[in-house]
Amino acid sequence: MLSKDVIKELKKILGKGSVSTDREDCLCYSYDATNQRFLPDAVVFPASADEVAKILRLANIHEFPVTPRGAGSGFTGGSLPVNGGVVLSAEKLNRILEVDAENMLCVVEPGVVTCEVQECVEKHGLFYPPDPSSLKFSTIGGNIAECAGGPRALKYGVTKDYVLGLEVVLPTGDIINTGVRTVKGVVGYDLTRLIVGSEGTLGVVTKAALRLIPLPHDRKTMLALFSDMNDAARTVSSIIASRIIPSTLEFIDGECIRCVDDYLEMGFPEKLGAMLLIEVDGGRETVERDASSIKDICLKNGSVEVKTASKRKEVRALWNARRAISPSLARYKLHKINEDVVVPRNRIPELIAGVREIAGSRGLKVANFGHAGDGNIHVNILADRDKPGEMEKAEEAVKEIFRLTIGLGGSMSGEHGVGITKAPYLGMELDAAQIALMKRIKKAFDPRGILNPGKIFPVEED
Amino acid sequence: MLSKDVIKELKKILGKGSVSTDREDCLCYSYDATNQRFLPDAVVFPASADEVAKILRLANIHEFPVTPRGAGSGFTGGSLPVNGGVVLSAEKLNRILEVDAENMLCVVEPGVVTCEVQECVEKHGLFYPPDPSSLKFSTIGGNIAECAGGPRALKYGVTKDYVLGLEVVLPTGDIINTGVRTVKGVVGYDLTRLIVGSEGTLGVVTKAALRLIPLPHDRKTMLALFSDMNDAARTVSSIIASRIIPSTLEFIDGECIRCVDDYLEMGFPEKLGAMLLIEVDGGRETVERDASSIKDICLKNGSVEVKTASKRKEVRALWNARRAISPSLARYKLHKINEDVVVPRNRIPELIAGVREIAGSRGLKVANFGHAGDGNIHVNILADRDKPGEMEKAEEAVKEIFRLTIGLGGSMSGEHGVGITKAPYLGMELDAAQIALMKRIKKAFDPRGILNPGKIFPVEED
Repeated sequence: MLSKDVIKELKKILGKGSVSTDREDCLCYSYDATNQRFLPDAVVFPASADEVAKILRLANIHEFPVTPRGAGSGFTGGSLPVNGGVVLSAEKLNRILEVDAENMLCVVEPGVVTCEVQECVEKHGLFYPPDPSSLKFSTIGGNIAECAGGPRALKYGVTKDYVLGLEVVLPTGDIINTGVRTVKGVVGYDLTRLIVGSEGTLGVVTKAALRLIPLPHDRKTMLALFSDMNDAARTVSSIIASRIIPSTLEFIDGECIRCVDDYLEMGFPEKLGAMLLIEVDGGRETVERDASSIKDICLKNGSVEVKTASKRKEVRALWNARRAISPSLARYKLHKINEDVVVPRNRIPELIAGVREIAGSRGLKVANFGHAGDGNIHVNILADRDKPGEMEKAEEAVKEIFRLTIGLGGSMSGEHGVGITKAPYLGMELDAAQIALMKRIKKAFDPRGILNPGKIFPVEED
Repeated sequence: MLSKDVIKELKKILGKGSVSTDREDCLCYSYDATNQRFLPDAVVFPASADEVAKILRLANIHEFPVTPRGAGSGFTGGSLPVNGGVVLSAEKLNRILEVDAENMLCVVEPGVVTCEVQECVEKHGLFYPPDPSSLKFSTIGGNIAECAGGPRALKYGVTKDYVLGLEVVLPTGDIINTGVRTVKGVVGYDLTRLIVGSEGTLGVVTKAALRLIPLPHDRKTMLALFSDMNDAARTVSSIIASRIIPSTLEFIDGECIRCVDDYLEMGFPEKLGAMLLIEVDGGRETVERDASSIKDICLKNGSVEVKTASKRKEVRALWNARRAISPSLARYKLHKINEDVVVPRNRIPELIAGVREIAGSRGLKVANFGHAGDGNIHVNILADRDKPGEMEKAEEAVKEIFRLTIGLGGSMSGEHGVGITKAPYLGMELDAAQIALMKRIKKAFDPRGILNPGKIFPVEED
């Protein structure tokens, strides 16, 4: 619990209207997409780096935890105040400060919603590629904290590939400016990239300079249907082997297709094993040629049908199936454990087969979809909370899936991060020396451990 | 000086043939491209991560400095054993271990020469873009240590954008595997990117997994001549404003042109103010269209002539002028101080004008060329060592140029690093809190300060 004095100090720093200890407010900042809840003692709404610095200095003196929060859409608990204390919301840091079209960059505050940045820069013929599924509500600050990816990562990379520099308030309360406003810049250690993906444990981002690229001229979308899942997986490898890099190459398994078809009545052929949603972009002629080559590759690899679209409305229809997966799975009214494992793309068939075996042998339902192009598959285990022992079985299955993934040369998280949900498994992927080094780095940033404690590292039993 | 016992231990670890204390050998490993010399006490040639680990553990016990070295082609002293001790050469770690064409990556040891990697992967239709001018002799290990760039950085990025994961021996002797073999992967802090560009101060890289991309189908090269340097600078901005990103966009100023013309008798028109060497690559139609648009832009902005080439021999002729700059400047027999400052690209005219003013007011010759597309200009101050006071004036000018660069929103190093030559100026670019944090990070990796000491940070006066 925070003392009255601390609350008083916070109100002195921020003004009364920007500090709340009301239970209703605290409840609103207690959850994220993990469905777990941890009540903070207070929520604060700083409007400048200077205010953030003062909050963190106060936290150092009184040793209370501070948990930064964007939109609370994370899947691993990064923004949950697991030890209480203060939630630091980025809501008031929500301005696009600058679009520098000549140098192809923009400067934004962390609370700006990702799609707002994208829409704003598109008016200048520019493109900010990272596209997590949450882009209509997740914030740039959250995207930076988790190093968000998305379907376009195969061709365009992830958030870390677009952050040029940051204004960061260190846990000690010092404000630093990392990085540069240029593609190149090698003075000192690359703190920018260290902070991206550090899940809000190393500093509070208060400004970000984002690299932009020219908006592609043209785009074509395809949906390829397969009877056999293995044909779809082989197609993914064949497309890449032909040296075409689609901007999207999404995999949807039979379970997801049936679920979506039940939900939207899309009239897919029965007994489909998998679908691939494929998009190519670039110059007009290249897009035409690549789309035609991809269609051939799909058919050669056993696709039963390839639908193609370039008009906005048709494209939206093809994306509908992909976008409807999550809501349609929700209709099962089962507890969905969503893991975003990633493997080298030619190991996807082994991954899917293994996941089915792991789930099947425990009588669990499983649905797989995701970014096949970069090997990042969203594995959804659907478990019945009311069935005795089922949740334990699901937890066992998750651990087995991580073991399988790592054995295939992959990682247990492609884009969601570790947070609290994967922290117990960290030692499966990283060896002890590496974890110890990461803890020393955390200490170099945050000697008193006040910023977002309880994340990434397994809780130590004293 | 190393004790006899330490030398004996090193020979026990590596075998007699892989440890030398001969003065001739030590001399060969005492220099780099800075023209400074520091004699090591011994040179060692480990052939495995395990041997590197044993050397570093020994260094921790006996507290002697270890300086990793690739080809010794660095411009800032990163591989110089400034405090003596052991030079750890990567010469025996020189294998390309794997080209995984299906997943578009390769795994190499640090001693492999950069162009060997490129030639090897091109046979698979793949492309490793980073192209420092030293690529025919510099090693991947050195490229990773300095985060090497090159002309292609504008379109393709720099070394850090292509390192997926590393096997690294920490200064403590622990061997860790960072990163993943996939584009995505967010488990724990991004140690890979922290180690890239850390100038060999945080760990010894013993293996690197490098991301590859499809080799572009086509390429077209242009050389545009300008009477007025400002026209050339404006052309750079106009090309980018047209949303074309060339794979090369090199700037060469009048001083360099005259020097090259004296050297190679290329017959350029007299009184040229600047040239741009421009290359576009990609699909055939796109390359044709982009080249034609760029030619129009050059002429509209006052270019007096645009030469175009697509055949290999013609392309080589156009590149000759660019490649001859360094050797031709050497003919002046003056001491060349080569700084690789970088500014947002629309500030290049201000940079060049400022550099000329700074040099001119001190009676110093200056020649500028470099990667205009990404704002990274190589400023060469040519000073006469024999003229009393001239070297002091040159040092003054360098400091003024850094001040100017930082004032324009740039950085004092785009690709060469800090090493020892820029360490005294670190505080001009980074604030005290950031430098203190970087020192704490260094300590988290290397508690005893045995790995490449004396680099990046200004020497403290005790």
